[in-house]
Amino acid sequence: MINRQWLLASRPKGSIEDTNFSYKECEVPNRELKPNEILVKNLLFLCAPTMRNWMSPPGNSLYPSIPLGSPIMAPAIAVVIESGSAEYAPGDRVSTRAGWQDYEILSTDLVPVGKIPDEMTSVDAMGKFGLNSLTGYFGMLEVGQPKENDVVVVSGAAGATGSVAAQIARIKGCRVIGIAGGEQKCQWLTEDCQLDGAINYKNRNVEKELRDLCPDGINIYYDNVGGDILQAAIENMAVKGRIVLCGQISSYNDEKPAEGPRNMMRLIYGSITMQGFLTRNYTDNFPSAIGNLKTWYEQGKVLFKQDVREGFENLPLIYRALFDGSNDGVLLVQINSD
Amino acid sequence: MINRQWLLASRPKGSIEDTNFSYKECEVPNRELKPNEILVKNLLFLCAPTMRNWMSPPGNSLYPSIPLGSPIMAPAIAVVIESGSAEYAPGDRVSTRAGWQDYEILSTDLVPVGKIPDEMTSVDAMGKFGLNSLTGYFGMLEVGQPKENDVVVVSGAAGATGSVAAQIARIKGCRVIGIAGGEQKCQWLTEDCQLDGAINYKNRNVEKELRDLCPDGINIYYDNVGGDILQAAIENMAVKGRIVLCGQISSYNDEKPAEGPRNMMRLIYGSITMQGFLTRNYTDNFPSAIGNLKTWYEQGKVLFKQDVREGFENLPLIYRALFDGSNDGVLLVQINSD
Repeated sequence: MINRQWLLASRPKGSIEDTNFSYKECEVPNRELKPNEILVKNLLFLCAPTMRNWMSPPGNSLYPSIPLGSPIMAPAIAVVIESGSAEYAPGDRVSTRAGWQDYEILSTDLVPVGKIPDEMTSVDAMGKFGLNSLTGYFGMLEVGQPKENDVVVVSGAAGATGSVAAQIARIKGCRVIGIAGGEQKCQWLTEDCQLDGAINYKNRNVEKELRDLCPDGINIYYDNVGGDILQAAIENMAVKGRIVLCGQISSYNDEKPAEGPRNMMRLIYGSITMQGFLTRNYTDNFPSAIGNLKTWYEQGKVLFKQDVREGFENLPLIYRALFDGSNDGVLLVQINSD
Repeated sequence: MINRQWLLASRPKGSIEDTNFSYKECEVPNRELKPNEILVKNLLFLCAPTMRNWMSPPGNSLYPSIPLGSPIMAPAIAVVIESGSAEYAPGDRVSTRAGWQDYEILSTDLVPVGKIPDEMTSVDAMGKFGLNSLTGYFGMLEVGQPKENDVVVVSGAAGATGSVAAQIARIKGCRVIGIAGGEQKCQWLTEDCQLDGAINYKNRNVEKELRDLCPDGINIYYDNVGGDILQAAIENMAVKGRIVLCGQISSYNDEKPAEGPRNMMRLIYGSITMQGFLTRNYTDNFPSAIGNLKTWYEQGKVLFKQDVREGFENLPLIYRALFDGSNDGVLLVQINSD
């Protein structure tokens, strides 16, 4: 048994390059496990935009920085092979944060580990009921707090998080406009997800389109991208509008940190609120969120796209799809079969 | 009787210059008043930082732009000379928004007009119980929502709005740090206002001082200035901290609009909320605010500094004191005696 690994060879400057990763094969860890350790085999990785931030140098204690020479860190589904812990038995599947490698010993004290119910597939655990969906759920409901007839705009609306956020706003009786890159994505949003409108930011003037589509202003802007699109939304916010800060993917590849609003007086004169959040703030409510999402998926009220790819060797290449938008829904990589 | 006027001769580019104003003398308006019109004599003007924004070109419908060639617009106390309205009688003093001129006809439908109680001096109506104080009151209590033991930082803390906001946070049991320009101002904050600390931004590294003074992070940052000091506060916010956006005076004289946070991910990873507000959102609560402020002033729990100057001819020069910080408290200009 060998343990394949993708290590962080160098920190990306701007866009991620091949040279930022190095492939290595080593032995599977083989030592006595402590009471809070489990040996796992990783099955499935989530490609999350924020992992790009984890590849940046340390310095901000609010999020982790992958050490140079260590496996790339990612949300993962894994199966327990051997357990030192009374809580986990061999064969249990867990949702956790793992390295881009086949096998590893996890300390359940140091990384979040949650058991997956037997009836839930690994793909669903990481997709439909995974981090992105929960982020869209809590960001829209807890931070955005949509009310009937609110005008809601979601950027990155065809992505895993954005599409859940947008469709939940629609369930709550809002008028919902999605912003996405490409005609096909926009068509999916209006025809399949039944949003009230969609803007293809690749060939449209987003600020002008928002002005036309939201003449009375935007009540809730759910932001996954930041940059110019955030600014276009700010210019069109209604008085007392709320901006949900979920992500800033448009600038994760920039050398400079993502910059904020270019006209702060607009926030003051408009009595606008901008609020950042993390999904882990709402851990206690995960079970009820999963229950509600399950109902909405079954009723067809929320559509969800999973873009499942294969092959450990392809991880670096697949991950980059997030940044050119060529993924079609939540991007998962199956590296070992369940 | 002549009517002295200061007109907007040209729009400031950067700092306000003498040439942006022109002095004129004309006749006092003399025509029949309509039912909602009053002829007033202006007594006292408030020098408000936001008037600098009103001198900018039109384009943002959220705030007014003074037309070129018109009198500079300012919050004012005036006395009614002649009234077409059943609500106002000659001799009534009103708080309103007027032009830099002695006399004018106001339409009570178009500008906010509020009668001043007989027992309140004009200076107190515009100062202790005026716009700045109410802004500090509502910004801290309604937007900031301070809880006991919160760590609160206020910029522009020796100014009229900031000092009220800071002292109210202290009344609510918070640990309060003020940021101000100059040792004398800082001394007033810690010795007279009994704040827990003060930082002189003119000769200190604000980010480092905040890190030292607030090792567990800032729960509420009340921002009057924006720019680098806002950024220094953002770097030191506690998780789930709240930023009250009151003003951005550090950049009102810039050609570019005030820019916001330089690292949006800090807001996301820190679950930070930034909220802009306008005092007029809370009009219904003005009477209770004035009641509470009165009690606190009488009990000596809130100190308030009024910098009252004189002379219509000095208006442009006096107004500029706001931007070099040479005013000592709320800046009022008495142009005619009560």
